[in-house]
Order: sequence, then structure tokens, then C-alpha cells
Amino acid sequence: MQKIVIIGAGAGGMAVASRAKRLNNSLNVTVLEKTNYASFALCGIPYYIGNIVKELDDLLFYPPEEFTKRGIDLKFGKEVTEVDVENKTLRFRDLKTGKEETISWDKLVLATGAKSKVSKIWPEINNAKNIFYITHLDSGEIIRNYALNLGKGKKAIIIGSGYVGLELIENLINLGLKVTVIEALNQILPRMLDPDLAGIVEDYLKTKGVEIIKNSPVESFEIQNNLAVKVKTSNGNFDGDMFVIGIGIEPNNDLAKQMKLNLGNSGGVIVNEKLLTNNPDVYAVGDVTEHKDLITGKYVWRPFAQIANKMGYIAGSNIGGMEAEFRGSVGTSALKAFDIIIARTGLSKAEAEKLGFKPIEASMNAGIRAHYIPGGENKIYLKIVADNKTGKLLGAQAIGPGESVFWRVNVIASLLTIKGTIWDLFNSDIGYQPTLSPAWDPLIIASRLLMRDLGEKPPSSL
Amino acid sequence: MQKIVIIGAGAGGMAVASRAKRLNNSLNVTVLEKTNYASFALCGIPYYIGNIVKELDDLLFYPPEEFTKRGIDLKFGKEVTEVDVENKTLRFRDLKTGKEETISWDKLVLATGAKSKVSKIWPEINNAKNIFYITHLDSGEIIRNYALNLGKGKKAIIIGSGYVGLELIENLINLGLKVTVIEALNQILPRMLDPDLAGIVEDYLKTKGVEIIKNSPVESFEIQNNLAVKVKTSNGNFDGDMFVIGIGIEPNNDLAKQMKLNLGNSGGVIVNEKLLTNNPDVYAVGDVTEHKDLITGKYVWRPFAQIANKMGYIAGSNIGGMEAEFRGSVGTSALKAFDIIIARTGLSKAEAEKLGFKPIEASMNAGIRAHYIPGGENKIYLKIVADNKTGKLLGAQAIGPGESVFWRVNVIASLLTIKGTIWDLFNSDIGYQPTLSPAWDPLIIASRLLMRDLGEKPPSSL
Repeated sequence: MQKIVIIGAGAGGMAVASRAKRLNNSLNVTVLEKTNYASFALCGIPYYIGNIVKELDDLLFYPPEEFTKRGIDLKFGKEVTEVDVENKTLRFRDLKTGKEETISWDKLVLATGAKSKVSKIWPEINNAKNIFYITHLDSGEIIRNYALNLGKGKKAIIIGSGYVGLELIENLINLGLKVTVIEALNQILPRMLDPDLAGIVEDYLKTKGVEIIKNSPVESFEIQNNLAVKVKTSNGNFDGDMFVIGIGIEPNNDLAKQMKLNLGNSGGVIVNEKLLTNNPDVYAVGDVTEHKDLITGKYVWRPFAQIANKMGYIAGSNIGGMEAEFRGSVGTSALKAFDIIIARTGLSKAEAEKLGFKPIEASMNAGIRAHYIPGGENKIYLKIVADNKTGKLLGAQAIGPGESVFWRVNVIASLLTIKGTIWDLFNSDIGYQPTLSPAWDPLIIASRLLMRDLGEKPPSSL
Repeated sequence: MQKIVIIGAGAGGMAVASRAKRLNNSLNVTVLEKTNYASFALCGIPYYIGNIVKELDDLLFYPPEEFTKRGIDLKFGKEVTEVDVENKTLRFRDLKTGKEETISWDKLVLATGAKSKVSKIWPEINNAKNIFYITHLDSGEIIRNYALNLGKGKKAIIIGSGYVGLELIENLINLGLKVTVIEALNQILPRMLDPDLAGIVEDYLKTKGVEIIKNSPVESFEIQNNLAVKVKTSNGNFDGDMFVIGIGIEPNNDLAKQMKLNLGNSGGVIVNEKLLTNNPDVYAVGDVTEHKDLITGKYVWRPFAQIANKMGYIAGSNIGGMEAEFRGSVGTSALKAFDIIIARTGLSKAEAEKLGFKPIEASMNAGIRAHYIPGGENKIYLKIVADNKTGKLLGAQAIGPGESVFWRVNVIASLLTIKGTIWDLFNSDIGYQPTLSPAWDPLIIASRLLMRDLGEKPPSSL
């Protein structure tokens, strides 16, 4: 009976376990998890903090019993301390009893996720009861309780304006706090949006009462009686009653290093289309890995749940005996801030230039519904980038009200996945219904703008 | 100076005029229109009837002056009676004065749209003041006024349960009427949805107080004192205070026939990728044409505004001197009925079978948001069809709450346009954000179901 051991019970790890066991019930599948949760959704934590999700258990995709029912041996509170790749064994410690144990494996799956490096950057935060960062489900509970106890009108400072930082804003304001965001760079969402689009989001957030401090890398925290009172930046100091750090995660690669697996620039484990590492008996999935970007062919670190899930499923299929492949991703991400949606996929124009493309860009502000439908004044800011030589789409960014903003970007993401061109976009038969879209959808208008340079049919040289 | 004459000032015709003139300002562009409207949106009429759109002029994309400003000679109230393709002239009549005139042309564009054939089917409707059908913007005004004068609680009977019929329901109910829908076949939306999905929509409409009569082809109307009192069907007679016919349109091809242009099965003019007819000096765009379906390669009639717009733009480019191509469509359409969205693209499984494919289908009812987000119980009914031999996607149908239903179908439409496969769909990097989508989007779950038969990577034989 083949022994499969999976380290880490997040969404990716549990997807491997379930899929492999379903395809081959004779497999002996063990999952070792440090915490007491399995199959959890960290992306939901901002909404748990904001009291929109009431119970922490709601964030689990399945209750742990479900996995037992599937014949998976799921062990909580176990920390793997050492992997012996020569002898195919590993050693783990029970976090309550301290007892150590060694087990053997035939195939190993690393699903150790990401970890925070903030206490390495600012060691003083270990001495403060009111500086928080999200590492696990429990973090959500601790942050919500602290915010609720503080009471209305107190000041929360969010460090970093990435996905986590921005989604925390709305939720902390929902709890009655005043919110200040501190960003090291000269725009919010620096990895997601172009500066001009980021400026539109900044203006919007200000109308919601959010204070945004840019160009202010955090240097340290001032701590008195185990409470931070101030964050010090290169650009001034800011008082607060609680501090949430929304930056500074990295692949949780300690075991990977010890196992001498090939790592990428981010420290993530390099995996191939089967999700195998350079060790043919070791798979890796989820936030601990780097995988291929489908536009550039380069390895990237993208700690996103939808990617972890797909990786887990495909690794599970390969382990379960069905050949399967995960090609990679194009970098689609989205967030909601109050009533606007922000989404992006692929490369920005500036990123494309750095990578050696000669990009062209359509940038527009267009109606998302027929002009005569009330609410039809709702507009999307949309940018689409393409390669000037081949007409291939390279990326998109969008901001606006409602789900259609997210989905227009998803249409581009799908086309990017199969190397679609601006002519493919023009000819894409996006439906039309007055309450849902204008007869000229912004996506198609963008393709027209992009065809200005390259012509309205593919050049015969292509 | 080249003379371009366009017959018909709907969205397609005016798109040709604007595009050609913009690319080559030296062109002499004349548009002849029978009515007094240009650049109108018939799709908005149900919402004008329902008083959601207040003014008829709101349904115009541009006011007529805009076209004059662009240097286009737009003539209203002119009916073209004869085209002489040998001598490149045409004859038109002023509908007010009756005066006839002949002009010459170098390139002619047929944009005559669609027409209703219902008065041919049921000639008695010409004698009834309370039987309506939508042919032009004015129809909207007449229907709304009649319904408002009838008063609340009176009974409207809608003949046909296609797009127009279904979108009228909500709007007539908004005006306070009771609504009965009469459908000849054994399901509503017979050209759009599979019977099981149609059944779900029927049950939903019943909860809104709509009466649905199926299997009842209309035979005739009983008319007393210029008012219809009853519609007679093979399955019984139904009393009503007003009757709106939502079926029975066909390509408005009288001139096309006279010009001996090649017509397809529907009577639509066959056009190529440049939008040229079999006469190298005659273009045709919009609802009067048939164009290629990108899945089957067969000519189809799809009288949809987004297609007319694209055709107009591409014909205008070709006339204006820029080579351009419209590849075709895949048959994407959508409608809104109260709070649900219904959308489809491509082929149903039954249609695919009839066309000789060996289709497989994923059919599911899945959450459209993360399960823990309130409102996350909202679910989409989704079917995706693919070819069992090649793994190519063939079509999709969906019903559910909110815009994402429409956009999920649009993602499939885009993939269909470039002959994407089930593996392309699995690898499509659809973003994830808890309030917008679940970590396993229904689209990706569907791809997993489809891969069951064909494997989780493309067979090496492909």
C-alpha cells in the first residue's frame, strides 16, 4: 500500500489528499497540520474581522470529519521537523505533548503555504499586544476581538496597501474604527495597479474617510507597556490604537531548503506541470511554490487560493494515477473596497516594457450598461495591454462598480491563457443585454483602440 | 468623390457611415432611412414600455445632428423602392410628399434590418387596435400609452416566449398589468434553453404571478369593434385586454431579392468576412444578413445589436480604405427576467448532436461566491458542452442571480471564438475574491467534470 504524506492541511494540501484518495482508494494518505484547522480560507479573514462572516468555522471548506469519512488520516497539532529524502522518512513533533515520531513515505507533498517575515523585520512587534498580522485562522479571531474591545472611534493603522491591507480597511471601518493606511511607495496597490488607476482608488477611499500616507516605509514601532503607541516611518510618526500589518509574507520553505529542493527567486519551490519538484517523489502545491507564468514563461510566486486549489487537484490526480497538468497562471487578482471592484490580469504596460515587449495600451473610461438604463452612468476604468509585434494580449487592469468589472478582466485572463490576440478579442462574441452591458462593450471598444496601430485584421505575416 | 449610399439608419447602418467617413473624409456618404430615427436601440424598447427608460429619444445612441456634424447626409422618411445594380443607381420615395428621386452610388450598403411577418400570418390583426408588435421605436410609445390607459389589473397577453416576450413580462407587470404568456412549443425560450433549464425559469416566473400557457400555437384572434378580445390557440382560447406579439421577425430582404443577392436559409443576405455580398460593390450589415457561425462554419441569422455594430464598423473600415475582418459569431445572447439572468452561447448538447458532434456535458448548480459570504447561497445553474473527440468547447447555458451569470457565459463565448478546449478552460486563470467568486469557480468545476471523460491533459494524439 503506497504511503502518501502531505505536509500542510490548507486548501491545496487537502485538495491533493481528497483527489488522490478518490482516484485510488488503496492509497494510504496522511496529512500533518501544525494548527487545528484544515481546508481553510485565509482570504475570508478580512470579512471575519469585519463581522460579515460570523463564525471562524464558516471559513472551512469542509469540517475535519469530512476528510476522515474520505479515509484520509488528518493529524492536527503536528509540526514536521525534519525530512530524510534518502530514506524517505520524516520526523514530526506533537505541539502539545512535545512527543516526536518518525514515519515513512513513498510520495511526499509539500503544502506548507506562506509565512510572515514581519517579526524578522521589526522584532519589537513581539512585545506589543496590539500589533497584528494574519498568519492563520486564529489571527482573525484575535484581531476582531481586539478591535471590538477598543470601541468606536479608536484609530487602526494598516501597514501596507496590498490586497490584505485594502480589504481590511472596509472591515475595520465597519467595526467603527478610524483607519489610516501607511504605504512605503508613492501609490497604493503598487503591485496591482498603474499609478493613475491607483490614484482613482485613493481618491475614492478618501471619500470614505480613510487616511492614506504614502512614501512612508515603516522603520519601527514605539512600544510602551506592551502596547505600540506609534509607528515610525522615514516620513514621520503616526499614532494608533491598533496596528495591522498587511505585508511581508514569503514561501514557508524551511523544509524545502532542508530537502535541497530547487527554489525560485522568491524562495518558492519550483514545480513542473505535474506539480513535481526536482525530487521525483516530492510534489509541492500552493503558496510554498513557484510556477510558470503563461505570458512570460518565467517562474513566479502567486500565493492565491484559486491557484493552490488547481495545483492540489492536479497533484492529487497525478498521485492517484491519472496523468494531469497545471499549465500555470497569468496573474489574475481582484479585490473589493466598499462599493468598487479592482481587478487585474497579466502585465501592465510598464511591466511589459521591462520584460522586453513593445506594448501598446488602450486606456478608457466607458459605460458598463446601455446608456439609457438608469445607473447606466456607471463607468469602468479599463486598460488593456497588447504586444505591438504580434497583437497578442498581455494584460488588463480595471476599476469600477459591480461584478462586471471583475468578469471583464476574467475574459481577458481566459484569452491570455490561450495566447489570444487583439483580433480574437474584437471577434469575441460578448453578449449584449441593455441592463448588463452596452451594445459596444468596453472590452470590444478597447480592442478597436488596440487595432488602430496593428490593423483590423491579423497581418498576413502572422 | 466616391459615393457611398447606405439604406437603413439603424445601429449597423450608422456604424458604417461613421466609420467610413472617419477613415476617409473625402467620401460622400448618404444614409436613407424610412422612419424619423437614426442609430436607435430596439433592445431598449421593453424598458421604455416599462417606464424605466423615460424618453424615446434616450434610446438613440446619438442625436441626428451628431451625424450631420460628422459630414454624413442623413435623410429621414425616404423609402428605397428600387435598386439598379447594373447602372449603380437607386430610386427612393419621400413618404410625406410621395416624391420620387433617383441617385447614383459607387458602393451600396444594405442595412435594412428585420421586419415582422405577423400580419402575413394573422391578417386580422390589422383590424385590431390592441394587438401590438415591435417594429420600430414608435411601437414602444404606442404600446406604453395603451397599457397605461388600460389601467391596473387588466390582462396583457404576450404571444411567444423568446427574448422579446420574456423581457416584456417584467415591464408590463411594472405597469400594473396581469400577464399571460402563450408559447407554441412545450417549453419557454425554446431556441435559447434546454427544457430542464427552461422549466426552472417557468417556475420562477410563476412565483411572480405570470401565467404560462405552453403547447398552444396561436391560430387566430377574435376581434370585436376593432378590439381583439381573445386569442384562439389549438389548445384553447384566452381572453385579454391587450395582446403583444413577441415572435415572427425575418430579414427585411425585399431589396436584396430584387438585387439578386445570395440569401441564406433564413432569407438573410450572405456576407463574407469583409461584409461584402456576392456583388463586389454591395455590402450588407446587421439584421438583414446571415454570417458564419464560428463553431459550425455554417451561415446563421442572428439579429443581435452587438453583431450589427461590429459588422457596421468592419464594413465601414473596408469602405474607408482599411482592410478589416468580421470573423463571425458563436451565438451569445442574454436576457433579464426580474431578478434572474439567463444567458447562453454556442450549441446545446441536443443541437451539437444534430450537427454530428459527439458532445459531452457538465451540468451543475453551484455557488457563485465563497460559501461563507452572506448571499453566498446564491447559485448558478450552469451547463457547458464540449466535443468528446477533440475536447473543444461547444457551448454553455446559465441561469441565476446577478451579472456574473452573464459574464461566466461570456468567458465561454470568448473561448469558443478561438476554439478553446476544456483544458484551456481548466487552466483559464479566473480570479478569486470571496465576495465575487468561490475559490473553485463554477466554470472551473465544470471543466473538471468535462475532463472526467477525456483526461486531465490533452491526449498526445491532439
